[in-house]
Order: sequence, then C-alpha cells, then structure tokens
Amino acid sequence: MQTELSKKLGVEHAVFGFTPFPAVAAALTRAGGFGVLGAVRYKDPDELKRDLDWMEAHTDAKPYGLDVVMPAKKVEGVSEADVEAMIPASHREFVKETLAKYGVPELADGEASGWRITGWMEQVARNQLDVAFDYPIKLLANALGSPPADVIQRAHDHNVLVAALAGSARHARKHAEAGIDIVVAQGYEAGGHTGEIASMVLTPECVEAVAPLPVLAAGGIGSGEQVAAALALGAQGVWTGSIWLTTTEADMHSRAVTEKLLAAGSGDTVRSRALTGKPARQLRTEWTDAWDDPNGPGTLPMPLQGLLVAEALTRIQKYEVEPLLGTPVGQIVGRMNSERSVQEVFDDLTRGFERAIDRINKIAGRA
Amino acid sequence: MQTELSKKLGVEHAVFGFTPFPAVAAALTRAGGFGVLGAVRYKDPDELKRDLDWMEAHTDAKPYGLDVVMPAKKVEGVSEADVEAMIPASHREFVKETLAKYGVPELADGEASGWRITGWMEQVARNQLDVAFDYPIKLLANALGSPPADVIQRAHDHNVLVAALAGSARHARKHAEAGIDIVVAQGYEAGGHTGEIASMVLTPECVEAVAPLPVLAAGGIGSGEQVAAALALGAQGVWTGSIWLTTTEADMHSRAVTEKLLAAGSGDTVRSRALTGKPARQLRTEWTDAWDDPNGPGTLPMPLQGLLVAEALTRIQKYEVEPLLGTPVGQIVGRMNSERSVQEVFDDLTRGFERAIDRINKIAGRA
Repeated sequence: MQTELSKKLGVEHAVFGFTPFPAVAAALTRAGGFGVLGAVRYKDPDELKRDLDWMEAHTDAKPYGLDVVMPAKKVEGVSEADVEAMIPASHREFVKETLAKYGVPELADGEASGWRITGWMEQVARNQLDVAFDYPIKLLANALGSPPADVIQRAHDHNVLVAALAGSARHARKHAEAGIDIVVAQGYEAGGHTGEIASMVLTPECVEAVAPLPVLAAGGIGSGEQVAAALALGAQGVWTGSIWLTTTEADMHSRAVTEKLLAAGSGDTVRSRALTGKPARQLRTEWTDAWDDPNGPGTLPMPLQGLLVAEALTRIQKYEVEPLLGTPVGQIVGRMNSERSVQEVFDDLTRGFERAIDRINKIAGRA
Repeated sequence: MQTELSKKLGVEHAVFGFTPFPAVAAALTRAGGFGVLGAVRYKDPDELKRDLDWMEAHTDAKPYGLDVVMPAKKVEGVSEADVEAMIPASHREFVKETLAKYGVPELADGEASGWRITGWMEQVARNQLDVAFDYPIKLLANALGSPPADVIQRAHDHNVLVAALAGSARHARKHAEAGIDIVVAQGYEAGGHTGEIASMVLTPECVEAVAPLPVLAAGGIGSGEQVAAALALGAQGVWTGSIWLTTTEADMHSRAVTEKLLAAGSGDTVRSRALTGKPARQLRTEWTDAWDDPNGPGTLPMPLQGLLVAEALTRIQKYEVEPLLGTPVGQIVGRMNSERSVQEVFDDLTRGFERAIDRINKIAGRA
C-alpha cells in the first residue's frame, strides 16, 4: 500500500503506528509500517538515548519516527508551584475522598509520581530533541498543536518531516500555515485528545483544507477494511495507536489494564476531561465517572487537572485498583480481543486491505 | 455501484436516501438511487395516499421505500393526557420563559402545533401502512427499533424488505433476531437519533454482528469518497439523509433553516436531548444550548420532552426566530454549501466514487 508520502519516507505500507513502547515501534517498522515512538515518558534524555540505540539495532535500517508533547502555548513567568497553588482545596479534597473510598494505598515516601502534561513540557521536549536529532529519525510528530517555528526549522535541517494532530479543518489549516509537512486528522473515535468531528467527516475536510499537504487518518482504525476506507477518504496513510496496546510486544504498566482492554467493547470508552483537563478518549471507569458526574466538582482546565490527578493515577496504576483503572484508548478497543504479535496484527491489516480492495472493485464493476 | 442488496432491490446504485420530501425521494429514485420517503409527518392517511400517488407518477416504475416511526415499546393503559400531566410545571415555565426572552409570538387560536414523537405513534404508523401496502414499495424502514412482529410479517407478505436503524452491534443483533432484513448502522456523526459509536467503527461491527444480513452505513456520508469508504467497511450500500436537505427539490419549512444549513460547518451540530428526550444530532442553536446548559432544568425523558417542546418548536419555525431555529442534521452539514438539484448531487456522488476507486487501486498497486 503505497502513497506519495509512504514513498517519500521509504516505507512499504502507509501504516503509521504511534506507541510508547520501543519494542512495538521497532516491530512495526520491521513489518513494513512506520513505527513512531512516543517520547512523553522520557524525563531523562539518557533513557531516550538508550531506547533510540535499541531502536537503531532493531529496525533493520528501516524508517521510524518520534512523537513529542510540545504545548503550542508557552507559559512565561509562572512557576509550576504558582499553578499548583491555583488548584482549589475542594478539588484536592475530592481526589483524596475518591481514593479513600476505594481504599487506594499511598505511595512510599519519596516514590516518584507519574508524568504530567503541563505547560512546562517544552523544555523536556527540547532536551529530547537534542538527543533525537543525533539519530536518523524520519518524522517528528507533535501531539499538542504545531511545534515552535525553530523546532520545525531544525527538523527540516535534519531532513525530518514534521506532523501535527488536528481535530478540525481549522486546526489543520493553522498547522499548514505554521509550515508542518503532514496533518494527522484525529477523529472523534480516536484514543487520547480528540475533538467532536468523526473520521468519516474529518478526514476529507482536512484533505481539502491543506491539499497538497498529505493527511494521515487517525481514529477508529484497526483493520485493513478501515485502512482502505481511510485511504478512500483521501488520506495518504493511517495513523494507528490503540490497536498496538494489546500486542505481545506492548509493555503495559499493568496486566489488569491489558485485561480490561481485551474485554472492553466499543461503547466502553468515554471522551473525558478527567485526565488532562482537555477532552481525551479513554476507558470509562469509576474514576472518569466521578469527574464527569454533574454532582461532582467537575474537572479543572489544562494544565491544572493533569497536576491535580498525577499522583492519584500513579497510585491507582501501581496498586491496580480495578474500578478506577483506565488508559487512553479509542473506540476500536471493541475489536482488540486477543493478544497477538505486532507482525500478526500487521499481516491482518494488509490482508484485510487487499480483501477490501477486491470487494470494492467488484461493487464498482471492475473485478 | 452494485451490491447484492442493490441487485435484489433492482436499483442501479447502492445509495439510499431518506427524506421527508416526495420530490426528493422521487428524484433520488429516478437518478438511480433508492428514495425513502419519511412518513412521520403524515397524520392523515389520505395525505400519504396523495403523495404516494404522486411518487408512482414520478418514479418511472423504479423502486422506492417508506420510513415510519414505530416505537419498539408499546404504551398500554396510559393516555397522552396522563403523560402530559407528568411534565413538571417548572419545565413548562422554562419553555415559556425561553420563548418570551426571544419574543417568540403565540400561535393563533386553534392553530395546530407540529408533530410529536410519542408512545402513541404506533397506531398512526399502522394507519400509514394500511395505505402504503397498496403501493409497490420495496422497503419499509423503522427509525425506532425493530417494527412489531406482525408488521414485519405483513411487509414480507407484500415482498417488502424491512430495515431498522442501529447505533450499536447489540442493537443490530436484536434487529436481526426480530427478523428484519437490513440493518442501517447509524454512526455518531449522523443527523437525528444517534449513538456514541462513529461510523468508522460502527459499520464493520454491525457487518460482523449480523452477517450475512446486509448493512447500510449511515452517518457522515455526502461524497463519493465517503460512499467508497463505507463500502470498504463492508456495507452493502449507504443510507444518506442530511445532504438532500439543501437540494433544490427539498421543501424545507423555512428559508432561514436552509440558509443556516448552507452556512454551518461540521462543528456546528450538537447531539442533544432537546428535541425528543433521546440524543439526536441537530444544528446547535440557543434553544439546544438552553436545554444542554448545566444550570438549566435539563431535558425530560422520551416521550415527555417531545410533548413539552412540540408547540414551542412550531412557533419558532413559523416565526423563523433565528437564534432558536434548528433542524436535525449530521456533521456532513459542513459540506452542504450550495443548493443543487438531487440529480447534480447524485452525479457528484457517483463520479466521486469512481475517483476514489481509481485512487485506491493506484495505492494498492493495481492501477
């Protein structure tokens, strides 16, 4: 499955896969797709260096990319402590009460709580890029708007294409004006931060809005039939994520989360502000229900919500507190019903794609 | 564009179009699609008879169908007045205040208010069917679940296929068990009553759930590329609706609504309970905002909400009170930017479909 973009990147199939796990990213690239390693969890640049060394050794000189989280808006002259101070005491109390209600144990003294999406991540991402540009990455994606102009320039100087996620045609146009190379049209059904417009409508709107820039379709894609549909809508490839979470190479933080993903139906996700303060699709849990309850205190705006819940989420994950335990994932979770290798899932995608082409040619009277 | 289903129905293209307007339904059928006339507004069976006579005279003996609104649950031993009495006075007061705030005039004495979706519509629909089965309709669709068993039997006795809308694979399976012939998978992006699962995920889930029964994909479809995508997902055709609302043959209740549809973007709809008490996608207006406002009284369950707002909606439409004026429509409204004939829109669909097939064959290396 070859598009102009896949040819440009030297990739066999126009299937891009975002994943926080180097083993999944490398397997995707080896299978003939394009693995994109999520960098958000690397607070220490040396850890990123170690994993990129590993990627180099396990990708057969085939192309892969990196995904960073760089907020479009810079926060100047305000410290993280200043913002922490803006969180109402009643919200902290609500977190405490909810955790107590479910008997969630405390962390040990000095134990680190998880990562946070905050306005101070730009420097973290810049440190990551200082490492990453020493490697032959072919793509730099940003999950929160267009990266700053100097970062785009630096990527282009290294012959790295820049991609940015968009939830509307208006976002897509803004990214194009900022000089990025690829728009990832993130439909309503997608996992993580997502807008209101579903892929069937969003993909062609973005294609039209930024032509001739290439668009990757994201949201709801886990089968070859869905890949064919996305390409029929004008995309130059698909951007997948959720489906790799239940592969055997995925190193999920908790076995209980994997079990939940395997058991979930397409109706078991919710687009909630509980995680970061912006709407993000994730497994629906008693934790998201508590935040989405009209009788509760409600969520705070980004970055306050992320700061507020960071330690709580670490505790919920560490102690695998079932009713509260979730993860970002898209509606395609309903089809993630078995654990298979990346290669097997990938082979299913390419076979399903060929089947869909056969079928649609027959319908069009071209078989 | 021919599928097993389109061949069975004797239709040239597997494009089904739901519309409340006989002129649109007939034009769709003449163009080579399958027009489906919405019957909900025909309270008087003689009016339906008159319009079906007109359809017969204007469809060149090509196939068409009828869409009725038959609630799956029967309401026994409760009168409409009993239910009216269940509406809280505070809700009636809220309607009154909202209308007053926008200066919406009263109806004249004795002037009829609009139709209502209530639990008492089954008899209305049965009266419609007594008329309809005298005509060579080929399809009977129901917007609210599977029709009662005797209605399905009666349709089959007349060689009429029965279709029912589904918002989840579970709904689809229930319909299949009830003996219907076609499932319409109504995605999140669709206009009118709709669930949470977007078409990209819902269509293949329904296809798998009810195979070998045929599935029509509904939601977000207004271009040939989207038709190709839906068919790639395994559908045996598409069920369209919104895109015909701005055709020159459409007889919208108000010019101001047409103008609003032409101006709206894909982000200008909302899935709200304001209309019937169940979530239905429609233009977002200050009326839907008032009902969706967490500080307002909130909506009532079906059928109370529909009874509560029926007269208000008639007044808003009659006096074209701009900020409150809406209509059910899907996210595809963002692409409905000009008024064209049904034939022109249909030709665009079939041309776009061929373009999408060309493109995807090239990507698949088959061109």
